[in-house]
Amino acid sequence: MPSPTPPPDTSDDGAIDVGLLSPVTAGHDAGVSDAAVLDALVTAEVALTRAYSRVGAAPGSAVTEVASTFGWQDGQSGCRGHGVALGDLVTAAVAGGNPVIPLVGALKARVSPEAATWIHRGATSQDILDTALVLVARDAAAEVAASLAATSVALAHLARVHRDEVAAARTLTQHAVPTTVGARVAGWLRGVDRARAQLNAVRAALPAQLGGAAGTAAAFAEHLGSAEAAAALVDAYAAELGLAAPAAPWHTERWPITELGDALVQALDAVGKIATDVATLSRTEIGEVAEGAGGGSSAMPQKQNPAASVLLRSAALRAPQLGATLHLAAALAADERPDGAWHAEWPTLRELLRLALGASAHAARLTAGLRIDAAAVAENLAATGGLLVSERLSIVLTPLIGGARVRDLVAAARGDDLAALLRALPELEGTDVADLLDPAAYTGLAGTFVDRSVAASPAPDAGKDPR
Amino acid sequence: MPSPTPPPDTSDDGAIDVGLLSPVTAGHDAGVSDAAVLDALVTAEVALTRAYSRVGAAPGSAVTEVASTFGWQDGQSGCRGHGVALGDLVTAAVAGGNPVIPLVGALKARVSPEAATWIHRGATSQDILDTALVLVARDAAAEVAASLAATSVALAHLARVHRDEVAAARTLTQHAVPTTVGARVAGWLRGVDRARAQLNAVRAALPAQLGGAAGTAAAFAEHLGSAEAAAALVDAYAAELGLAAPAAPWHTERWPITELGDALVQALDAVGKIATDVATLSRTEIGEVAEGAGGGSSAMPQKQNPAASVLLRSAALRAPQLGATLHLAAALAADERPDGAWHAEWPTLRELLRLALGASAHAARLTAGLRIDAAAVAENLAATGGLLVSERLSIVLTPLIGGARVRDLVAAARGDDLAALLRALPELEGTDVADLLDPAAYTGLAGTFVDRSVAASPAPDAGKDPR
Amino acid sequence: MPSPTPPPDTSDDGAIDVGLLSPVTAGHDAGVSDAAVLDALVTAEVALTRAYSRVGAAPGSAVTEVASTFGWQDGQSGCRGHGVALGDLVTAAVAGGNPVIPLVGALKARVSPEAATWIHRGATSQDILDTALVLVARDAAAEVAASLAATSVALAHLARVHRDEVAAARTLTQHAVPTTVGARVAGWLRGVDRARAQLNAVRAALPAQLGGAAGTAAAFAEHLGSAEAAAALVDAYAAELGLAAPAAPWHTERWPITELGDALVQALDAVGKIATDVATLSRTEIGEVAEGAGGGSSAMPQKQNPAASVLLRSAALRAPQLGATLHLAAALAADERPDGAWHAEWPTLRELLRLALGASAHAARLTAGLRIDAAAVAENLAATGGLLVSERLSIVLTPLIGGARVRDLVAAARGDDLAALLRALPELEGTDVADLLDPAAYTGLAGTFVDRSVAASPAPDAGKDPR
Amino acid sequence: MPSPTPPPDTSDDGAIDVGLLSPVTAGHDAGVSDAAVLDALVTAEVALTRAYSRVGAAPGSAVTEVASTFGWQDGQSGCRGHGVALGDLVTAAVAGGNPVIPLVGALKARVSPEAATWIHRGATSQDILDTALVLVARDAAAEVAASLAATSVALAHLARVHRDEVAAARTLTQHAVPTTVGARVAGWLRGVDRARAQLNAVRAALPAQLGGAAGTAAAFAEHLGSAEAAAALVDAYAAELGLAAPAAPWHTERWPITELGDALVQALDAVGKIATDVATLSRTEIGEVAEGAGGGSSAMPQKQNPAASVLLRSAALRAPQLGATLHLAAALAADERPDGAWHAEWPTLRELLRLALGASAHAARLTAGLRIDAAAVAENLAATGGLLVSERLSIVLTPLIGGARVRDLVAAARGDDLAALLRALPELEGTDVADLLDPAAYTGLAGTFVDRSVAASPAPDAGKDPR
Repeated sequence: MPSPTPPPDTSDDGAIDVGLLSPVTAGHDAGVSDAAVLDALVTAEVALTRAYSRVGAAPGSAVTEVASTFGWQDGQSGCRGHGVALGDLVTAAVAGGNPVIPLVGALKARVSPEAATWIHRGATSQDILDTALVLVARDAAAEVAASLAATSVALAHLARVHRDEVAAARTLTQHAVPTTVGARVAGWLRGVDRARAQLNAVRAALPAQLGGAAGTAAAFAEHLGSAEAAAALVDAYAAELGLAAPAAPWHTERWPITELGDALVQALDAVGKIATDVATLSRTEIGEVAEGAGGGSSAMPQKQNPAASVLLRSAALRAPQLGATLHLAAALAADERPDGAWHAEWPTLRELLRLALGASAHAARLTAGLRIDAAAVAENLAATGGLLVSERLSIVLTPLIGGARVRDLVAAARGDDLAALLRALPELEGTDVADLLDPAAYTGLAGTFVDRSVAASPAPDAGKDPR
Repeated sequence: MPSPTPPPDTSDDGAIDVGLLSPVTAGHDAGVSDAAVLDALVTAEVALTRAYSRVGAAPGSAVTEVASTFGWQDGQSGCRGHGVALGDLVTAAVAGGNPVIPLVGALKARVSPEAATWIHRGATSQDILDTALVLVARDAAAEVAASLAATSVALAHLARVHRDEVAAARTLTQHAVPTTVGARVAGWLRGVDRARAQLNAVRAALPAQLGGAAGTAAAFAEHLGSAEAAAALVDAYAAELGLAAPAAPWHTERWPITELGDALVQALDAVGKIATDVATLSRTEIGEVAEGAGGGSSAMPQKQNPAASVLLRSAALRAPQLGATLHLAAALAADERPDGAWHAEWPTLRELLRLALGASAHAARLTAGLRIDAAAVAENLAATGGLLVSERLSIVLTPLIGGARVRDLVAAARGDDLAALLRALPELEGTDVADLLDPAAYTGLAGTFVDRSVAASPAPDAGKDPR
Repeated sequence: MPSPTPPPDTSDDGAIDVGLLSPVTAGHDAGVSDAAVLDALVTAEVALTRAYSRVGAAPGSAVTEVASTFGWQDGQSGCRGHGVALGDLVTAAVAGGNPVIPLVGALKARVSPEAATWIHRGATSQDILDTALVLVARDAAAEVAASLAATSVALAHLARVHRDEVAAARTLTQHAVPTTVGARVAGWLRGVDRARAQLNAVRAALPAQLGGAAGTAAAFAEHLGSAEAAAALVDAYAAELGLAAPAAPWHTERWPITELGDALVQALDAVGKIATDVATLSRTEIGEVAEGAGGGSSAMPQKQNPAASVLLRSAALRAPQLGATLHLAAALAADERPDGAWHAEWPTLRELLRLALGASAHAARLTAGLRIDAAAVAENLAATGGLLVSERLSIVLTPLIGGARVRDLVAAARGDDLAALLRALPELEGTDVADLLDPAAYTGLAGTFVDRSVAASPAPDAGKDPR
Repeated sequence: MPSPTPPPDTSDDGAIDVGLLSPVTAGHDAGVSDAAVLDALVTAEVALTRAYSRVGAAPGSAVTEVASTFGWQDGQSGCRGHGVALGDLVTAAVAGGNPVIPLVGALKARVSPEAATWIHRGATSQDILDTALVLVARDAAAEVAASLAATSVALAHLARVHRDEVAAARTLTQHAVPTTVGARVAGWLRGVDRARAQLNAVRAALPAQLGGAAGTAAAFAEHLGSAEAAAALVDAYAAELGLAAPAAPWHTERWPITELGDALVQALDAVGKIATDVATLSRTEIGEVAEGAGGGSSAMPQKQNPAASVLLRSAALRAPQLGATLHLAAALAADERPDGAWHAEWPTLRELLRLALGASAHAARLTAGLRIDAAAVAENLAATGGLLVSERLSIVLTPLIGGARVRDLVAAARGDDLAALLRALPELEGTDVADLLDPAAYTGLAGTFVDRSVAASPAPDAGKDPR
């Protein structure tokens, strides 16, 4: 539901947050703005009215009036240009604790009395608000998934191109053994692809919410005359919106929210790991990678700030604690509607969606533009002399000269010419010392892992709406 | 891998934590004790040796020696009675930052030189430690899943028995409309069953870890002479342990850990929601439920503390933040082995497993013993007079007498006799006022949701090891 | 710095957040809006220019031009009506990762070349952004402190009025022994007063930030010709803003932020505890308290939702995790400016300020309007018969009849007439059984604690700006 | 209270945690072990008995019997060798939800009936458990403070020694301008000293807990005959233990716990920042610092793992979320004793104490042994040629040749000889180009900040117990 973002109707003292302190999300969060949420709230209300018609209860004329008055397009696009003023709603929402009650009043006031009776009929505020958040989340998650897919494409390309470019692997900050640039990138790719799969699974199952005052659907049954008809109404409502029909209301069983939250956090973990590596590899002393469009500094032109990585890391540091709040809210979802836990979800889920939207978009750009400096990679690879393959030397030489002498040899080699020391060993006569010390000859399954990861990476949906 | 827990070999100043401050986990955490982790570490090492034999590299005699020396049973039970002293290992582990390095030394010292060469061959500490944590998690998660399954059985029984017992539904702490005890319990059941499904999916896919110093498996390839043989070794190692073979090492792609953590937190959410409701419904003024074996007080015999609910809630309040730490560790999994993030996972995942083990066991007992006080349920249901069905009155009466008069009527009824007021209305002549005010006639789909939830609840694995 | 909130200059696709999903903060967050932050950024820049004049470096004409162009008022009110367009800045901020770089360009473009050279001279973005956040926090914290002070006044009044109103104390959800309404409220008061004290201590010490590119102040020394002059400039800058002069820059020593965050979370804990109790005590079955302006429900008129408590609890459930993010950012504040941790602070601190602003304002209103239902208090007090004083019976009777008989007696009393049972005991001849069973005679130090707490509660600053 | 750690009395299936998965805390956590907590629980009980004597109520003989039976030493050392079996207690604790109830039974069984009546007289479990946790925390916090003080000493020494050693400052991972090693270390020092001050303030004010069943002290008043005597008892109890006397019980006003938690997290932030920098500066490509006793690798001798930094970072990544749990528990401290929130504090606070104990000890060792590699510092300083002082060039040259030409010059200098370019400028005739390009001439207030920080660092308590 791309949000058209109508001009904000805000009172003079209303706070306006356009992202000044959130560069990672600024420009990527229109889909979760208050305007977009309002669109979704209106969409949920109109969908309920349409569902009453679909089950044969509401007269077509009333539904047509409601749908056209509030700009209903379809279950994917929802309502646009509905004309409900955001600012008024916010002011009214504070008193009642949620924006649905004033919204219902505003909607009813704009249609005929006959049509008005079919608006919000039998529903509770939570039905509309949960459904609206699901709609916003569905569209935002689709956008996140598309950005992650673009990131995968970029990473798969990088992994293939640099499949056999040998580099120093680092463990606990220290050069350990050789790896390849491709293997490193393939690891990033696996993380992103796993997060895509989880997010796609979650968003495919996002359920509508419709349970009435306390989740029994009693008012629907009363209005429609039977429990069966009420059950059909729930299914019709979900169908109108293209959402999954729930087996029962989930007013206080909040796994749809926590599973969504977990998937979003996982996506931020995946791009956070990439950003952590890019920031490190961009260090002045390392310089193996550079962001395509690094943040420069006019006063300090030698700087090539990994600006996108910095933003991605800032998002990844925040997301897990937001996910934790969603879980707490689930555990504390008391009674048939909780006394605070539910309200804690709204801004938390929205901020998590914002972070995922912004971070995944930045990740797509970052990976598409990432430059590998082959010379720096090679220079670092050579920095410790042959010691980077000391594990290999230990494996090969121990049977020939014993473990103690291997250790002595490697210890002596710090700063010395290891190749010369090895060539001087009678036991190694006939051994190709240059090959033995060649990092490229000690990369194990690095290429295999690249090939497997690239092959397993799902293509983005081609030519159709990823939603 | 039920842990036999050998007598602890601890130095005099070693801290001993047997659960004094953790009543929710005490008595349920043997499977994640240091002794159990040590068993799993030894198991992982022996499995690697066995894998070398399975791919035709290690001589049978060496493998037999290693396996018998350290008490190998099979891939499920692992090694028992291996004789490695826990206390020594802890002391040595501090210096190196992890316990695997001293463990390898201890193991090699106990077998022949020939056999010793096949121990830890080509592996890195993280291979063994990650695999050991996965083994411990697999067994603990199986126990959690079994407890959740028992909880489901108890809840399904409760939901069926109390399917049509009408009760007051509460929203934002206030009586709202009628529901049923069964519908409330069915909600708990859906939460538990969803958590079971997620946990079972995660534990079925838990991967072994084997990548060597920096995840390229280069040392294995060097030892075995080819990349293909190294790939086969990884598969053989996973097969020895009954774990999934990873497509590539996940040294710094930590979704197997975060997904496990998320599933455990979700399980704690589900039982936390139950406990939150039971604690509320046990309140002196409410008294609708009582734990079967409540914590009494000799000085205050009127108290029936919901002791299990209190413990469950304490666990549910802690778990989300532990899950957040696992996500942070994933996002900060720098390089080819991170500088702190990996180490942050170990105690965090263990505590999360402990909480899930203890809480799920308490939940199974709580739900099996939960008593419903039908009289209290009925008394509370009647507490607001007919006002509990005021939503229904609004639906039925508004067409007859208009919304304004309905509101006046309901306002007047506070403390008055609502039935008499209704019977006095000429517009309601012929209406069955008693039925109109009967909460049991306004429960909508409550019974349907019970039936659906019970029917959808998977039976526990019958007669076979749930692992 | 009350924010005048100029009309937002946002591009069509900019997200607008006016609080639709944040009823707890909506209407209370103008002071931390993007507009307010922008005011503070401009204020920090102008203060630096003024500081250059104060130390005798910048010509008065340049400073006068800068100050008047951007609406400088004074160190408390800062700049108003500066005319910098918010929307343009946000767009430009994304590219560079922070809004200061484009801001400097925008400011310089509006003054003469001579004056422009004194803008941002020697400063780094972090100097301006940190200082601006401190300014915003100072003003917001003053507002929070004022709301907490109002809450204290209301609580002290309540505690005094209900000092001796006996009520059932509840532990682990069960009636335990008597307490008083006053004692309960006095506990709330102590929590709020402690939070006030902590917050006031933190805000009195909030430091300015001025260190230049990497915290050495080298550029200031270069511009001014000496280290001493640079040190004086830092002091002058702080003095211009009414902030504490830092001993050294705190670019990557972030305790000023975490201590502020901790104090804000503590304030939310204190009001969260009140809200938790009010929500419980408002339950339909308990009904001891009611919010003055409860959220009603047209369809369910029997409901008196504790709407403010629900909002307060939603805020208190979110705040601790935001505080945790600030601590993580402090621990990960790498190098001389970190690669993500700093950026994670901005929106997190702002959201925490928002929550504290909204929640403290709601708490002030909630406590000012809280109604105690004396009849319900008395009814609940009597609910368990004399068993509420069973602890007292045990103390008094055990010496007379032995512990075993006391236990039997109390057990028998459930549902029976305890007074009659006691009067039938020969050992109690002469004892005033009515007094023995009177809860009012067993409230210990409840009154003392009220008196102490009220006496210790500091009065709000009278007649002067609390900032 | 150094814990003598009696031999653990654990059942065969009891979990034993000696720290296998917690290398950062292993060996440092004896003071918070179950045995130490048990000591403190016994200490609190004996102190209450002694307090009854101090106020003139209990006969000296009874108190002497109790004190001697359970090994009372004094208020600092508490009880030692009390002979209560830990394992039995744990088993019994699970049923009742806390260990105090079985403890009281065990204590009473070991003294005469007369003495037994003075044990736990009028107290509630929370009085004893909260006080015991405070005692454990007091001693642990003293140990943490001592380790932090040692860290300060080491850092102050390092800062002084390397006061003028010029180094590259890094912002957003990139070389920015010069700084000094001393200035960097002085920043670490300020962070540690601030954390010390906060921790010392908190531990000096740690209050005893004594309120009886619901915080009214009614049972004490009943036993002692007056409210005044009960108030005196509370003061006497605190005096026996050397703790602050609380103005009122804090059963559900939990700021003493959250403030302690915040101070511990702040300490972990401070050492986490050091570890983050040390890990970065230890990187193979940077190599400016090395831990004195780095973790080596036999297979990879080129590695000098920053093992202590890794452990410190793992602790710092975990601590904030534990602190958040304490805050949540405070906000949810319902009624007069909460239904879960209190229980959530126990293991959380203990783990936070453990982390602070271990991390502060490692930090003291790390900083005492930290080696600065002057050659590497110098090499990195020179890595970007004169570009590291490009900010200075901009300041100096802009007035001479204009900003545009400065930018061109600096851009041209990448890889070129900047000094030669400068000397070729006619406008710079007479300028000392070597000095202009000398990083040592552009360190601003770096030395001043070192001097201030070292001068402000409080000396550790000399010759007396820091407790």
